[in-house]
Amino acid sequence: MSKVNSASGALVIIGGAEDHTNERKILAEFVRLSGGGDASIVIITVASEAQSEVGSRYTEVFTQLGVREVRALNINKRGDANARAAVEMIEKATGIFFTGGNQLRITMLLGGTKVDTALHRRNEQGLVLAGTSAGAAMMSTVMITGGKSDTAFRIGIVELSPGMGFIGGVLIDQHFEERGRLRRLLLAVAQYPQEIGLGLDENTAVVVRDQELEVLGQGSLTVIDAGGMSYTNLASLKKDDILTLCGVKIHILSEGYRFDLRNREPLIEADSEVKKAKEAKRG
Amino acid sequence: MSKVNSASGALVIIGGAEDHTNERKILAEFVRLSGGGDASIVIITVASEAQSEVGSRYTEVFTQLGVREVRALNINKRGDANARAAVEMIEKATGIFFTGGNQLRITMLLGGTKVDTALHRRNEQGLVLAGTSAGAAMMSTVMITGGKSDTAFRIGIVELSPGMGFIGGVLIDQHFEERGRLRRLLLAVAQYPQEIGLGLDENTAVVVRDQELEVLGQGSLTVIDAGGMSYTNLASLKKDDILTLCGVKIHILSEGYRFDLRNREPLIEADSEVKKAKEAKRG
Repeated sequence: MSKVNSASGALVIIGGAEDHTNERKILAEFVRLSGGGDASIVIITVASEAQSEVGSRYTEVFTQLGVREVRALNINKRGDANARAAVEMIEKATGIFFTGGNQLRITMLLGGTKVDTALHRRNEQGLVLAGTSAGAAMMSTVMITGGKSDTAFRIGIVELSPGMGFIGGVLIDQHFEERGRLRRLLLAVAQYPQEIGLGLDENTAVVVRDQELEVLGQGSLTVIDAGGMSYTNLASLKKDDILTLCGVKIHILSEGYRFDLRNREPLIEADSEVKKAKEAKRG
Repeated sequence: MSKVNSASGALVIIGGAEDHTNERKILAEFVRLSGGGDASIVIITVASEAQSEVGSRYTEVFTQLGVREVRALNINKRGDANARAAVEMIEKATGIFFTGGNQLRITMLLGGTKVDTALHRRNEQGLVLAGTSAGAAMMSTVMITGGKSDTAFRIGIVELSPGMGFIGGVLIDQHFEERGRLRRLLLAVAQYPQEIGLGLDENTAVVVRDQELEVLGQGSLTVIDAGGMSYTNLASLKKDDILTLCGVKIHILSEGYRFDLRNREPLIEADSEVKKAKEAKRG
């Protein structure tokens, strides 16, 4: 399902609009995983059209969070992602942060470059990768690139494309509750029931390690598992017909809850640590 | 689960904003079930603050659909719903149409009155009952009366009240996709997993007969079945905590598809009539 193994660096996949100014829980966790004050963080702004502003903003936030070495890598053409200097930034980094924007800019400008190769190799050796919004969507092998969420549930409203492939077996959607994207993610997993749909609300993240997800932040993770789908009319749909699907399972998980991608199950029963942590916080 | 039996009149439960001017498929089906041109239709406008306008509008539509006997019953105080003339209108009717507005106005002004009693008795004998929006929500034994749908998924956002009880075992939400109400319906069924959640999009209806639903109209019916829910943190939630729930089943059904409330299952395999009807329409 995925080449991720226990030596791989964590992925921090963020549903967009993460807190930059208050508790900054998600960004602080990314910094902690990357080595804290000793981290070397590279911000990859390729998804954005306004790379230098976005880079400056995140540089400021990570600096405020105590990281001494923060650099932005702007990529405006594929040559930038094949440059020796860019690859060296990746080699030295302990944490990479992908900003939001357009996920197709990430794949078009980064896919198959030397930076891409270095990111995969270094992630397998422990490099932490984070991404928000478009930077979250592109993490998977297949990514959602478009599709209206509104009104009815018609064939063709969701567009899927090859992603950057840092995690397999999932389809990631972001701004999930805020933009009402349940039906587009349902349509996507109905087409590819082998993939598990992950819908991340804003200011909400999953930290992925060794095929286990843990939720962090203010909103919810919606997990859609169409593996047990008993019927869909998808194969016979014509354009503007409405999708029917039966027997799709969903889980909605809040902070501290975990999900096992291997067994497609939430990790609840054995999970006394979560409860303890929650009780401690409340105490 | 419900007293509905095979002699009972159909319920036509509409997700709001049904077409009044073009094909009028849903209202035409209600008219057909009520006896066509020979129907005697009573429009109950109690949910609305502007009863006479709403009554006139629906009178015009049903008249255009060929019904010769259409009357509006306005109820502004409980006495109106205990009046002999009002009860006589119900006795003579073959179809009742509840307009939209505020579902609490329906229960406050109609609950326990002679009109209420007559509606239940006559429905058991075959009287067809339709309702749109608030007129849909009130059909069930327990109804949703409020609760914000936006942002996160916090305890207390959904308000439930006793409904008019024309159908048991379900919780009905309307304007479902248009107002992004999935999470409020999930929260409601997480609290009452014995009830099946029915989310109706606008210009979409279910026709209920003998514990079977059939979808009609432009959008989808979302069925939420929390009967198999494996875990929820609902019991230990404090205000503003976020709900977690695992293993909830959903079905999304479009026009022509049916659902069996008794067995909590879509009726797909044996349902060759649906396919034939669809093929005939396309032919």
